[in-house]
Amino acid sequence: MKATVMYGAGDVRVENVPDPSVIDPTDAAVRVTHACICGSDLWPFASMQPSDHGQSMGHEAIGIVDAVGSDVALIKPGQLVIMPFAHSDGVCEFCREGLQTACVHAGFFGNNGLNGAQAEALRIPYADGTLYPLPVAQDAAIMPSLLTLSDVLGTGHHAAVHARVAPGEIVAVIGDGAVGLCGVIAARRLGAEQIIILGRHPDRTDLAREFGATDVVPERGEEAVERVKELTGGLGAHSVLECVGLAASMRTAIGIARRGGAIGRVGVPQDQQLPGSQTAFYANLTIGGGPAPARAYIEELLPDVLEGRIEPGRVLDQTVDLDGVPDGYRAMADRTALKVMVRP
Amino acid sequence: MKATVMYGAGDVRVENVPDPSVIDPTDAAVRVTHACICGSDLWPFASMQPSDHGQSMGHEAIGIVDAVGSDVALIKPGQLVIMPFAHSDGVCEFCREGLQTACVHAGFFGNNGLNGAQAEALRIPYADGTLYPLPVAQDAAIMPSLLTLSDVLGTGHHAAVHARVAPGEIVAVIGDGAVGLCGVIAARRLGAEQIIILGRHPDRTDLAREFGATDVVPERGEEAVERVKELTGGLGAHSVLECVGLAASMRTAIGIARRGGAIGRVGVPQDQQLPGSQTAFYANLTIGGGPAPARAYIEELLPDVLEGRIEPGRVLDQTVDLDGVPDGYRAMADRTALKVMVRP
Repeated sequence: MKATVMYGAGDVRVENVPDPSVIDPTDAAVRVTHACICGSDLWPFASMQPSDHGQSMGHEAIGIVDAVGSDVALIKPGQLVIMPFAHSDGVCEFCREGLQTACVHAGFFGNNGLNGAQAEALRIPYADGTLYPLPVAQDAAIMPSLLTLSDVLGTGHHAAVHARVAPGEIVAVIGDGAVGLCGVIAARRLGAEQIIILGRHPDRTDLAREFGATDVVPERGEEAVERVKELTGGLGAHSVLECVGLAASMRTAIGIARRGGAIGRVGVPQDQQLPGSQTAFYANLTIGGGPAPARAYIEELLPDVLEGRIEPGRVLDQTVDLDGVPDGYRAMADRTALKVMVRP
Repeated sequence: MKATVMYGAGDVRVENVPDPSVIDPTDAAVRVTHACICGSDLWPFASMQPSDHGQSMGHEAIGIVDAVGSDVALIKPGQLVIMPFAHSDGVCEFCREGLQTACVHAGFFGNNGLNGAQAEALRIPYADGTLYPLPVAQDAAIMPSLLTLSDVLGTGHHAAVHARVAPGEIVAVIGDGAVGLCGVIAARRLGAEQIIILGRHPDRTDLAREFGATDVVPERGEEAVERVKELTGGLGAHSVLECVGLAASMRTAIGIARRGGAIGRVGVPQDQQLPGSQTAFYANLTIGGGPAPARAYIEELLPDVLEGRIEPGRVLDQTVDLDGVPDGYRAMADRTALKVMVRP
């Protein structure tokens, strides 16, 4: 079968690889019907050291179960399922608490040698704890939105939860990528009254407005902080969603947060040092977040997707087949695509 | 009157200064009956640049109101009052939310030129919003515990609140100073089941055990992380109270927190960079805290103090008069005193 393998920065190839099979009794094999390229795939696309064996790529998918191991009880062949970006056993204490990305058996698809979803099929460890069977048949109109439940919608929601978004409050979202836009959807859904998006791509901030953003701030750094202060009566935002991951964006997040406010961060941090520690301390800010338990959030978010109250699938603005995946990476890196859907 | 003035590292003097008076109509003048030396006073005592005019010191007090301005409606001359370490107007939106240290009129006693409480008397701006009238007369036995409501008990409680201490959970407290010990009291009071204190002064960790600590970890750094992991089934503590403020102690806090856990930090951070950003992110940790709204917490904590259910005053293990204040600083810096009470 065909699968996407990255061999180094800028070097993404679609290759023939062995078909996946059930190895452990808790595995499933899933035929991918829809996958994506993620903003986080652009980090290795920009900086990965050359590798002889490469890394199988992709961690967002919907597919059809082909086979299951002897210990799989809940997932059945033929089911249409969402595959969240991490696998989890579903039974450990972290899974029971709804933090599946901290599962004692967690693993991240398309990372650290684990097989990826930009492929015709892939092996799913801990199928019962990982996969979410969809209660609907494939429906072209709604599939992109369902696909975002595998990562970006849950991740935007996680940022909003950690930023403690509450009805009537002021929210700022840093970043106009797919996660930032899903953060706008999540903030609106949780009742935010004013939603300020910080981004400088007009097509994306236009979409943010359609999703519920009330203000757009294209400035960066100190100018952005000043602009957000102006928009918030001088006090800043109760909740800040940090959807980028750079030190500069975290510095902005701390600068625009209201005293006593919260920053939910889901942008993968590119540095081990977090800036602004004293500033955050004297302002009594709370900073939280990390890899979203997308699996836990499906249950909460799915009804709004199914009933069309939110349309996160609109962030998927290009579609490629598997052979088109390398072009898809380039389009996202060049910012000519917001987020690329893959139809193997 | 006599007051304490710091002129540089190690240079604390008790001097004659003009008596305080009511200047603004919202002021009160308070005669100090009990004050303290704070662990945070040791930072400038260790490192303050020499200054010609000096800094009036002290931010924790109980006293008797001598005079009030014409706009003071709630506070009356003759009342016995607690003075929290920050003044606040009591009416702005931050005060109404219970975050008085973010008050639009906040100021910190004994800081930035504001007069301090290691003195016979001091001026209190925004007396109505700042002072808390005690419902009891002076009572020698309970005064030290009431005095801790001005800072260290509220600060330990703030750490516990931000660390999300909840019944039945595992809590770790970093630091065996007065705030760390009050953090143990707060954690116990909020229902923690296991309370691990990280500290290496046996007299202090013994007191921590009396306050409710179940385990003592004298190790530091990686060894401390390993030890806490052993004590917590390998997973770490749900809640970590960071009561030191050094990069090393924050690194330990991040290392010993359970995935999905929370760190409440009240140790004044000595660095603008916070370490362990990626580690904290991948573990989905929440880090919050800052200057405690001690004024807000008095209402919640006072009944337990008055009824003797908690005895935070036991952290005050030495008493000096005003002339003894410089010796008190030295005793705390040399760790021969835990926390010094001042009786002007």
